[in-house]
Amino acid sequence: MTHLHDDPTAFAATALAGYCDVFRQFVRAVPDGVVRSTATPDGKVALVIGGGSGHYPAFAGYVGPGLADAAVAGDVFASPSTRAVRDICARAHRGGGILLGFGNYAGDVLNFGLAAERLRGEGIDVRVLAVSDDVASASAEEHERRRGVAGDLAVFKIAGAAAEAGRPLDEVERIARLANARTRSFGVAFGGCTLPGAKQPLFSVPEGRMAIGLGIHGEPGIDEVPIPSAAELAAILVDRLLSEAPAHGGKRVAAILNGLGSTKYEELFVLWSAVASRLAKAGLAVVAPEVGEFVTSLDMEGCSLTLTWLDDELETCWLAPCDSAVLRRGATIAAEPAAIRDEAEVAAKHYPEASAEGRAGGRCIAGVMAHLADILRDAEQELGRIDAQAGDGDHGQGMARGSAAAAAAAKEAAEAGAGASSVLAAAADAWADRAGGTSGAIWGVGLRSWSQSLGDDAPIDAGRLAAGALAALSGVTRLGGAKPGDKTLVDALEPFARTLEAEVSKGSALRAAWQAASDAATGAAKQTADLVPRLGRARPLAERSKGHPDAGAISLAMAARAVLDRLPDGPG
Amino acid sequence: MTHLHDDPTAFAATALAGYCDVFRQFVRAVPDGVVRSTATPDGKVALVIGGGSGHYPAFAGYVGPGLADAAVAGDVFASPSTRAVRDICARAHRGGGILLGFGNYAGDVLNFGLAAERLRGEGIDVRVLAVSDDVASASAEEHERRRGVAGDLAVFKIAGAAAEAGRPLDEVERIARLANARTRSFGVAFGGCTLPGAKQPLFSVPEGRMAIGLGIHGEPGIDEVPIPSAAELAAILVDRLLSEAPAHGGKRVAAILNGLGSTKYEELFVLWSAVASRLAKAGLAVVAPEVGEFVTSLDMEGCSLTLTWLDDELETCWLAPCDSAVLRRGATIAAEPAAIRDEAEVAAKHYPEASAEGRAGGRCIAGVMAHLADILRDAEQELGRIDAQAGDGDHGQGMARGSAAAAAAAKEAAEAGAGASSVLAAAADAWADRAGGTSGAIWGVGLRSWSQSLGDDAPIDAGRLAAGALAALSGVTRLGGAKPGDKTLVDALEPFARTLEAEVSKGSALRAAWQAASDAATGAAKQTADLVPRLGRARPLAERSKGHPDAGAISLAMAARAVLDRLPDGPG
Repeated sequence: MTHLHDDPTAFAATALAGYCDVFRQFVRAVPDGVVRSTATPDGKVALVIGGGSGHYPAFAGYVGPGLADAAVAGDVFASPSTRAVRDICARAHRGGGILLGFGNYAGDVLNFGLAAERLRGEGIDVRVLAVSDDVASASAEEHERRRGVAGDLAVFKIAGAAAEAGRPLDEVERIARLANARTRSFGVAFGGCTLPGAKQPLFSVPEGRMAIGLGIHGEPGIDEVPIPSAAELAAILVDRLLSEAPAHGGKRVAAILNGLGSTKYEELFVLWSAVASRLAKAGLAVVAPEVGEFVTSLDMEGCSLTLTWLDDELETCWLAPCDSAVLRRGATIAAEPAAIRDEAEVAAKHYPEASAEGRAGGRCIAGVMAHLADILRDAEQELGRIDAQAGDGDHGQGMARGSAAAAAAAKEAAEAGAGASSVLAAAADAWADRAGGTSGAIWGVGLRSWSQSLGDDAPIDAGRLAAGALAALSGVTRLGGAKPGDKTLVDALEPFARTLEAEVSKGSALRAAWQAASDAATGAAKQTADLVPRLGRARPLAERSKGHPDAGAISLAMAARAVLDRLPDGPG
Repeated sequence: MTHLHDDPTAFAATALAGYCDVFRQFVRAVPDGVVRSTATPDGKVALVIGGGSGHYPAFAGYVGPGLADAAVAGDVFASPSTRAVRDICARAHRGGGILLGFGNYAGDVLNFGLAAERLRGEGIDVRVLAVSDDVASASAEEHERRRGVAGDLAVFKIAGAAAEAGRPLDEVERIARLANARTRSFGVAFGGCTLPGAKQPLFSVPEGRMAIGLGIHGEPGIDEVPIPSAAELAAILVDRLLSEAPAHGGKRVAAILNGLGSTKYEELFVLWSAVASRLAKAGLAVVAPEVGEFVTSLDMEGCSLTLTWLDDELETCWLAPCDSAVLRRGATIAAEPAAIRDEAEVAAKHYPEASAEGRAGGRCIAGVMAHLADILRDAEQELGRIDAQAGDGDHGQGMARGSAAAAAAAKEAAEAGAGASSVLAAAADAWADRAGGTSGAIWGVGLRSWSQSLGDDAPIDAGRLAAGALAALSGVTRLGGAKPGDKTLVDALEPFARTLEAEVSKGSALRAAWQAASDAATGAAKQTADLVPRLGRARPLAERSKGHPDAGAISLAMAARAVLDRLPDGPG
């Protein structure tokens, strides 16, 4: 739907005024169109283009250095008047004559043609080129009867470059005609556009269907099929265009994959991947492809592919610098290509030097992680069942996957001689990377925060472990955003860390302190059954979770208990 | 709808690959994101940005000289993983430290935050900035809890400029935080987006309604109202943002009017006209506004307005050169502003010098045109009635308006001393300009072609008039595309011109010849009742036109008869 307008009859004119305000570095508003706001040399051929509105950036968006000199804008989907074309030409003319470019539609042919006659009557040399690239609209034998679609951009870009290079009008016209003769477009549509102020689309395509060859104002297409995959659509578009390759077209093509309005960039990039691959298989080299919105039809759903078979002269023009709202060539900041970085350097694992005590601590942690992974693998089903009562049931899987990856990384780090801190950090990162989802990332944050309280050069002691638990709590709440009472693992982690710290502070041995902390976590985890989650869950899940404990809190308590099995009995 | 994909789970990755292929002058594909393909100096602060996919050009489209150094891409609407962020940072780091920028969403805060901790563990200085510009998502007192929307672009552009200028990390971070603190966005939505592979939109807005403050992933808005006019919407957006202007914000603002996907450029330009005017009334000066698609949400319908209150430092950064797929500053072709052309020169009417005989002919034609205008004004109702049987009923109006304008222009030209050819040409142009529609343009072509057979220095004679009629026929068929039998005015013009030429050739006096031609036109016009139109009419009208004559042919015959009243009896 087109929603935004005041008086619908003023839509085209108001849009043009807004465009001119934003892009004043390129254009100046004049009645019924725009002229370049940048100076052009006397004697340069003027490229004046235009057509109906509703096709932005066609046509005002193509005005700027290296491209068009002026654009005439009609009302939505309506040709500009003869007088509008004539007057804008009078403004744009620099003494070198004018090439008038527009899509091949009856109204435009009439008004641009008549304007050309008027201008000739005023002594200005004017040539007229109706772009006719749409293969769906007439047979190959009647190329000049075809309508103009996104091929406009290719033809105008090439003609604009020839004019900017100072070529005389005869040459600019010849090159533009050659570009048009070598340009083919083919398009598809999924849905129609809505005229400003209208309640219904101008036309429609049945749901789940794709119209082939539909015109950009809803002119009839040539076929209708179920919506294909991107790869199938690439084949439809490329194969039809290749079947119409001009004689002696060569192997180098300019390509434009054009979105009509509501078929978005990311879809176009997906399609482009398939189009590029199919063109490459056909042995064609694509030169400076353009993927985006170049000739739209308000909010129409669909896209088209345009190919222009290049010779050396056309390629030079296609690549020549230009600057406009929609298309530019050439850099605004000079920059060299970057050297490509060594992949091994990016992935390399460097563990800091560790003392013998630190390495011993690392081996200890690796042992604990291996045991934890065993316990969580065994608990996978149970944790999944608990999670399924209020969540999506994948918590057990994530915990098993994360802890297994953490155990493997800890083993690798310990064997490489890493200290306790580095071993736990490696385990943390592996857990986050492999577990997936929020709980994996949270475990990663928690263990990594914990690791920073340990050293690579010192033995693990109760004080450092307790400080680490508090650091883990702090990291998890800071990065995860959950607070106690939100029905997350924080509800178990918080009493665990506080109890551990309190017990260690009052001199309890590590194992006893950990036992107390683990009991506190287990008790708190069970109590989460009384809570309603605040974060990270959609509302229906919140309702469902009533009366069920939180799987994240339960698995944290379970892990705390698992670690207890591997702790020494004595102090420190 | 999002229609184009192969495997929907590969949508984000394939889209990114396609983007990298097209924009290789800016980016190089790496796992889960992109890095600049252009060289950056050692020691430069790296700006690494990212977030979920589905928001193109956010975030990969912001990578290039003067803007971001790299972008990390998650799956559609999902945060990238910690590892993806960490690895891309390792690639982008140039020894100057890293600023990590992303929108303020829980998953991104978690993963970017965790990656920052890992990187710090590797000895890299990393700062983290969660953009929080959306005023609808939390109160002004909790600015840092707001989510990030199109303000991303403003904050990243400013931070990127500071980094490119070689500022140290502390400074880049300070400037980026200042930009975020001074950036506010407010958005509205008309309809939801469709995830690749889904059959239904992710969320929806009731038809005819507009959601205010809806998030770009469908997060709840704060209000819902009937869809307003563009001017009303401008007031909603501007007034809310101005009510949240930062303290000491000043009077200069960067502005971004952002389309979310299916709200198209021309609508945005219409809205921008109203926004710009409202900002001006509030005394704000807008610096380099951007209107387009910068942070989308697949094919979501809606838009947002972002303002960043600038100080001198922020303005310098906002305006600094940059080059990327979506945003650039600076020209690729150096160009001076153009001198503005004298309006009088554009509009000036120059009539060629005419002889006394030519001027007499001009006065004669002015008289004929005045009479023709009288006749067609009287026939307006009847012609309208005939046209309404098969067309839209405005033919009589167009003919009356066109002929009146032609008569006035002919009078003006004759009084200015123009010759016959120039008087008729002036009448032709005025007819086309004022009548409107195809029939007006066709009459313009016909009369202008006719005028070229007359001279400004010779008397009007039967031979020139007959040649002119043939020229008119030729001009009309060439520019209008209709042939005899298409049920247009050509069906009457063709027998008129041929009969006139035949009669004059065999020596008939002008009046007699014109009488015969006029009779032929009238007979042919009546016979158009038997024809079905081929051109310029939609199919339902074609059906309705059966049995009714063509209004264009009838009015041509009527005009021919009217001229007869003013022709002299004798020869020549």
